[in-house]
Amino acid sequence: MLKKNLIVGQSGGPTAVINSSLYGVVSEGLAHPEEIGHVYGMVNGIEGFLNGTVLDFEEALPGEKLGYLKHTPGAYLGSCRYKLPESLEDPVYPLLFKKFEEMNIGWFFYIGGNDSMDTVSKLSRYAARIGSDIRVIGEPKTIDNDLVHTDHTPGYGSAAKYVASTVREIILDANVYEKKSVTIVEIMGRHAGWLTAAGALARKYPGDNPFFIYLPETAFNTEEFLAKVEKAFEKNCNVVVCVSEGIHDADGTFICEYDNSVGTDSFGHKMLAGCGKYLENLVRDRLGVKARSVELNVSQRCSASLLSATDQQEAVSAGVYGVQAALKGETGMMVSFIRETDENGNYRMRCGLEDVNEICNAEKPVPAEWITDDGADVTEEFVQYALPLVQGKVDVPLGEDGLPVFVYRK
Amino acid sequence: MLKKNLIVGQSGGPTAVINSSLYGVVSEGLAHPEEIGHVYGMVNGIEGFLNGTVLDFEEALPGEKLGYLKHTPGAYLGSCRYKLPESLEDPVYPLLFKKFEEMNIGWFFYIGGNDSMDTVSKLSRYAARIGSDIRVIGEPKTIDNDLVHTDHTPGYGSAAKYVASTVREIILDANVYEKKSVTIVEIMGRHAGWLTAAGALARKYPGDNPFFIYLPETAFNTEEFLAKVEKAFEKNCNVVVCVSEGIHDADGTFICEYDNSVGTDSFGHKMLAGCGKYLENLVRDRLGVKARSVELNVSQRCSASLLSATDQQEAVSAGVYGVQAALKGETGMMVSFIRETDENGNYRMRCGLEDVNEICNAEKPVPAEWITDDGADVTEEFVQYALPLVQGKVDVPLGEDGLPVFVYRK
Repeated sequence: MLKKNLIVGQSGGPTAVINSSLYGVVSEGLAHPEEIGHVYGMVNGIEGFLNGTVLDFEEALPGEKLGYLKHTPGAYLGSCRYKLPESLEDPVYPLLFKKFEEMNIGWFFYIGGNDSMDTVSKLSRYAARIGSDIRVIGEPKTIDNDLVHTDHTPGYGSAAKYVASTVREIILDANVYEKKSVTIVEIMGRHAGWLTAAGALARKYPGDNPFFIYLPETAFNTEEFLAKVEKAFEKNCNVVVCVSEGIHDADGTFICEYDNSVGTDSFGHKMLAGCGKYLENLVRDRLGVKARSVELNVSQRCSASLLSATDQQEAVSAGVYGVQAALKGETGMMVSFIRETDENGNYRMRCGLEDVNEICNAEKPVPAEWITDDGADVTEEFVQYALPLVQGKVDVPLGEDGLPVFVYRK
Repeated sequence: MLKKNLIVGQSGGPTAVINSSLYGVVSEGLAHPEEIGHVYGMVNGIEGFLNGTVLDFEEALPGEKLGYLKHTPGAYLGSCRYKLPESLEDPVYPLLFKKFEEMNIGWFFYIGGNDSMDTVSKLSRYAARIGSDIRVIGEPKTIDNDLVHTDHTPGYGSAAKYVASTVREIILDANVYEKKSVTIVEIMGRHAGWLTAAGALARKYPGDNPFFIYLPETAFNTEEFLAKVEKAFEKNCNVVVCVSEGIHDADGTFICEYDNSVGTDSFGHKMLAGCGKYLENLVRDRLGVKARSVELNVSQRCSASLLSATDQQEAVSAGVYGVQAALKGETGMMVSFIRETDENGNYRMRCGLEDVNEICNAEKPVPAEWITDDGADVTEEFVQYALPLVQGKVDVPLGEDGLPVFVYRK
């Protein structure tokens, strides 16, 4: 068998462990020198590949430097939000496969969320159509945890740990004054509330703050919300509320739209921001109490100090497993996570494969039965689901300047 | 000598190590049983004390629990923003000292910033006037680092480490796309830019992002800012800028006031927020590029995962030193930090005492010579000043839920 080269790219928004999946793909690729020649990286995803920006990992990250990927946030290879044309008749497809041929690519890996799986789907379908033997595998990645046919996604555990730990700290910060106050914590998640739900893990004891958690899976009623907050002051003068950026009312209008002008990104998604600020002002105006809002923002997806070791290890495993599957001839598949229980009844995860066509452009919401009837909290089932995913501390090496050492392309 | 009791309170906004100073005061207080009887805490500062809310540390945090204070953010005792009347003729002063007498208080410690030192000043002057032998000592605390007559303040090092580490991560996050973008990071600091300046520590190599750092010590010129950003795109398509919440133009108008309605707190300080959002919109409108803003918000003062071990140890030392000074008869003083160099030329800190009357209601800005001539960066001198303060990692114990374990009053 002639050796072929492997190429890997990253796409969509970064996560704290998207580079751990990259490490898994690259290290496993380099571990099969009898079958795999060079291990290349596309700089800035498929869009960068089209522009000819490619690196060779043995030159870019030689020796132990490769391991630094495992604690480096952001997408080491850079990312893109380029969507391949729907029609496989488009001239971009023969152009891409010509480039693959020139570079003797036999294995193609793409690390990303729904939109990236769409790229994997199109490339694998085009490969089948022209009889190319390129193996195309998707590696899941999203802090949103909204991919179907997988128990969870790499990136979610670390983001959930960031949310849980930070909300726990914000609660301590909120509790210092003996004066009625409301703190609104706005958490990422456009259509799925998985990450916002992780605010429930912040509770130190049953009945602790955050008193309310609002997900985009249920309609948000402003008047009910104000009444609940008012009532909660009977328990504690400092009320902390977690809200997803994507909460909306029964008519489907995003709460943030009551406040802000809203743009759209290149995939036509609405760019949301500001429901926290809107609710802060609403609470101050209507309840006459001190109010503030905290938008957790990009640290949710790029905090190295709050990496979940479980998430990191699973992200590496997904990368390794994908390469092994491709070597066995699999293509058009996404690596999935299957939850199991070990002999002691503890959480254990194993990797599987799912047809990427069943995954792209679908979204998995938080199940209705994991949301309380009043739509203002999540159930213990959710907590039991999420807890194993945030376990374990990662020691990030510090440099001479006392700050975390990351690898990067200059 | 008859035994007297010690009381300690916390005031103003919390920091990541305000509880480490508390630990220092309480542990040293308990270490002198021949002179000090009970070690009490005022719940919610002097305001709470007036309302009779006091706890006894041997009951509240027995045994090893006391040590948990060292990694618990927020103010364990709760805080207040109560300002004692200017006139020492006010009836609140005899009322306070009657309560001190009833509780047999001999030592009074107050942990806080400028406004808290004002309380220490008034109480110590009133004690002198009535011939009370109560010793009144101030323990410095502020992430703003703006107290005079001290090299730096406890709380600054951890906040600076949070800013430096988080900005470094935000830069990685910003670098993923190959498309012009501007990220504005808004950092706390009303009148002093110490914390914003810590953004300079985020640079991984000379010339790295953040390309610009704007402090409130110099006037901000919007047109010059836009021209600089435009020019910076020649170096890197992703530009990261650190701005202090308190930046203002040459007329003294806060940049955020161009955007937001602004309230005042109970000390008459303007409540600032939103210059980041304002600049984000400005950049998008005027330069036509992708722009976003990140307000680091309260995590700057309550992140346990990015505690500086140096800051934590110094905060404990300040607490211990204050108790020892009070036992020697000192009063009306604030514990200060004096920077020294050890035999190897390395940073070393020792504690001293300063007249609290010289400290309260004064503010120390970043020196003009540590700001570059164009007002858009800080110099290497600042970096050398700040680096020792962010050193060392603190291992925060994790609980069964895999999240940090904190102590708190229920």
